[in-house]
Amino acid sequence: MKTTRRDLLRGSIGLAAAGPTLLFANKSSGYAPGEITQRLSSGKGLNGITKHDLSTPSLLLDLDAFESNIAKMSKHVKAASINLRPHAKTHKCAEIAIRQMRAGAVGVCAATIREAEAMAAAGIRGILITCEMVGRERIERLLRLTQKAADTISVVDNIAHAVELNDAATAAKIKLNVMIDIDPGMRRTGVPPGDRAVELAEKIKKLPGLKLQGVQCYSGVSSHVVGFEARRAHSEKATAPAFETITRLNKIGIEVSLVSGGSTGTYNIDPTLKGLTELQAGSYVFMDVEYRNIGGKSGAVYDDFDQSLTVVATVISQSHAGLATVDAGFKAFATDRKYGPDIKGVAGVKYNFGGDEHGILELQKPSREIRLGDRLEFIVPHCDPNVNLYDRIYCLRGDKLEAVWTIARGYI
Amino acid sequence: MKTTRRDLLRGSIGLAAAGPTLLFANKSSGYAPGEITQRLSSGKGLNGITKHDLSTPSLLLDLDAFESNIAKMSKHVKAASINLRPHAKTHKCAEIAIRQMRAGAVGVCAATIREAEAMAAAGIRGILITCEMVGRERIERLLRLTQKAADTISVVDNIAHAVELNDAATAAKIKLNVMIDIDPGMRRTGVPPGDRAVELAEKIKKLPGLKLQGVQCYSGVSSHVVGFEARRAHSEKATAPAFETITRLNKIGIEVSLVSGGSTGTYNIDPTLKGLTELQAGSYVFMDVEYRNIGGKSGAVYDDFDQSLTVVATVISQSHAGLATVDAGFKAFATDRKYGPDIKGVAGVKYNFGGDEHGILELQKPSREIRLGDRLEFIVPHCDPNVNLYDRIYCLRGDKLEAVWTIARGYI
Repeated sequence: MKTTRRDLLRGSIGLAAAGPTLLFANKSSGYAPGEITQRLSSGKGLNGITKHDLSTPSLLLDLDAFESNIAKMSKHVKAASINLRPHAKTHKCAEIAIRQMRAGAVGVCAATIREAEAMAAAGIRGILITCEMVGRERIERLLRLTQKAADTISVVDNIAHAVELNDAATAAKIKLNVMIDIDPGMRRTGVPPGDRAVELAEKIKKLPGLKLQGVQCYSGVSSHVVGFEARRAHSEKATAPAFETITRLNKIGIEVSLVSGGSTGTYNIDPTLKGLTELQAGSYVFMDVEYRNIGGKSGAVYDDFDQSLTVVATVISQSHAGLATVDAGFKAFATDRKYGPDIKGVAGVKYNFGGDEHGILELQKPSREIRLGDRLEFIVPHCDPNVNLYDRIYCLRGDKLEAVWTIARGYI
Repeated sequence: MKTTRRDLLRGSIGLAAAGPTLLFANKSSGYAPGEITQRLSSGKGLNGITKHDLSTPSLLLDLDAFESNIAKMSKHVKAASINLRPHAKTHKCAEIAIRQMRAGAVGVCAATIREAEAMAAAGIRGILITCEMVGRERIERLLRLTQKAADTISVVDNIAHAVELNDAATAAKIKLNVMIDIDPGMRRTGVPPGDRAVELAEKIKKLPGLKLQGVQCYSGVSSHVVGFEARRAHSEKATAPAFETITRLNKIGIEVSLVSGGSTGTYNIDPTLKGLTELQAGSYVFMDVEYRNIGGKSGAVYDDFDQSLTVVATVISQSHAGLATVDAGFKAFATDRKYGPDIKGVAGVKYNFGGDEHGILELQKPSREIRLGDRLEFIVPHCDPNVNLYDRIYCLRGDKLEAVWTIARGYI
């Protein structure tokens, strides 16, 4: 074997001569994200690009798991005779919404006007904006959106707000569709059930610019109650007063044709609630650490849907036995829960946040060796805010990059 | 006074006839962010746009406070005879970096290759990338960046990584500037001080593709120690072994011309450390709740720099006495600390996170009335990850919008 100058150099600093390139075990081609975008726009396609080529941290979607989740929820709602209007705040991604619609969704929910605009621009209809659109700028955008997508619905929990919407709609000579947002006891948004909700409905019915389409009652707290039976009890108790209110409304001649609520945590609980017409579940497309730990119908792990979403990170430092540092911290993972991400496919390693751009892995009893330069995939702590940290989602079939989808993140 | 149809309508639902428009007290023009961008690109400028026109949540910069912070740090480092290479991970904004350079900075720090590329594209030179650039994709981008901005420096804490950098540089026929990253005891990144650091330096000196420029020793933990004297003691103790190592390196003929470290928390402590040649402080341009609470040299509140950064949010629901809900939650504020944001200019109100898009205000003893539709400004919990949630920063002179700056956020 010929000894090269490089081998001599390696020998002089104590590294094995002619050894393998140390940190680049993977020999794939190394496209930068900009080059991937360029290849897409030039029509060259993504042939030959694998997940090993992507920059880190990046957001990855396992298409097999994702498609299985879409199909499973579709089958579930058909069997349960309930509509699905999945929440797009989870993914903010028109490509995903399109696939949800193809699988039978009646529309999508949006939390912000920005999300709703992105969905409408992609041709999605049946948009329900689940947060109150308060303030002139928001209402003007809602009007423009409704002129484009006439079946858009937003929610109202206050008569002063309803009057503002009515005045704006009247001036624009259109009708705005609204639902009454009834509070299931979270004291976050929503009019309390009972007399106040009935009074609000009666007043809204008198506003000519508004068309009352129904009621929203979303118990976000219920969705993360640990244990299936505890979750069922929580959801039933939280939503019961709203359903009683809906019965009262129907009795006094105020038709409530749409009743929207429910989540991925209660997707197999809420369809049995008398009167709910549609599920707002969103997280089922991705799943996350949080959902996994709430427990399923038949066990401690909620695994009704597959973990399809990961963040890939690189081990960038390893100076101490039992520790390794990756290039993914506060800006790569959602930090709104008490826990960090889990490593996919590796047991005995705990991730601890180490700052904006760092995570420190405790190699407690690792099921495989973790080395400098390794690329590791992580299941994210909480999918919605985690997706919001990224502009694109890299869609993989096995290891191969099949598509790159845009996330309408942030607040433009 | 003429009674209109609208007045009659209002009367019929119990609202004062001919009353003021309820939620839109501000009569400004209501530009959507897209329209603001359009006005900028069409050369119409931002005349007449005020902060009351902006969508919520939006990220705002008080230019008077920001400029005062830039000037104050500039004056400080001149008096302390130390260079300033401010950290751009805080702002990810070329416009801000340009202003820091104009005020005398020798360059900027970057945490990611994306940040470094954004700074270089804006003409900034003297870029120090403070995280290890491990992995082929990262190294290829570092090479391209160095071909454009030859004085770019990155950090190394491992000989295997140094060899990779060297091999890539040699193949590309350029020299890569590196600093040895010495760990001040955080066990996050960095080679431990002492023998291991000396050995790494000696090996790097033998690599022809690398040019050893100096040492980085950043004690991030020190920067947030509460109490000035405790902070001083922590920083001195954490960094002392690194400074001893630098003395050893100089003795054996390895010149360490640059020694980079320090933060906004220790800006008036670290210049007295023997041997530090430059400060990496970043947060001083914005400040946040976290820094305010670490205490200053002369009191419990760190107010050496002004709070220039806020998020504006709207009260979108108010169904309960003592509570009000704003449209800013996990996706609008950094959640990596135990506390949420503070309201600017209003006392006696506590913000609690209420989900992805909601914050719930406890109106404990509010110093002013909080009403539905109100727009409130919040001082962010932790500036770096908070800025990373936004694509643009709206720069205000008083209430007037003077500029819109782009944030190179995320991981493209």
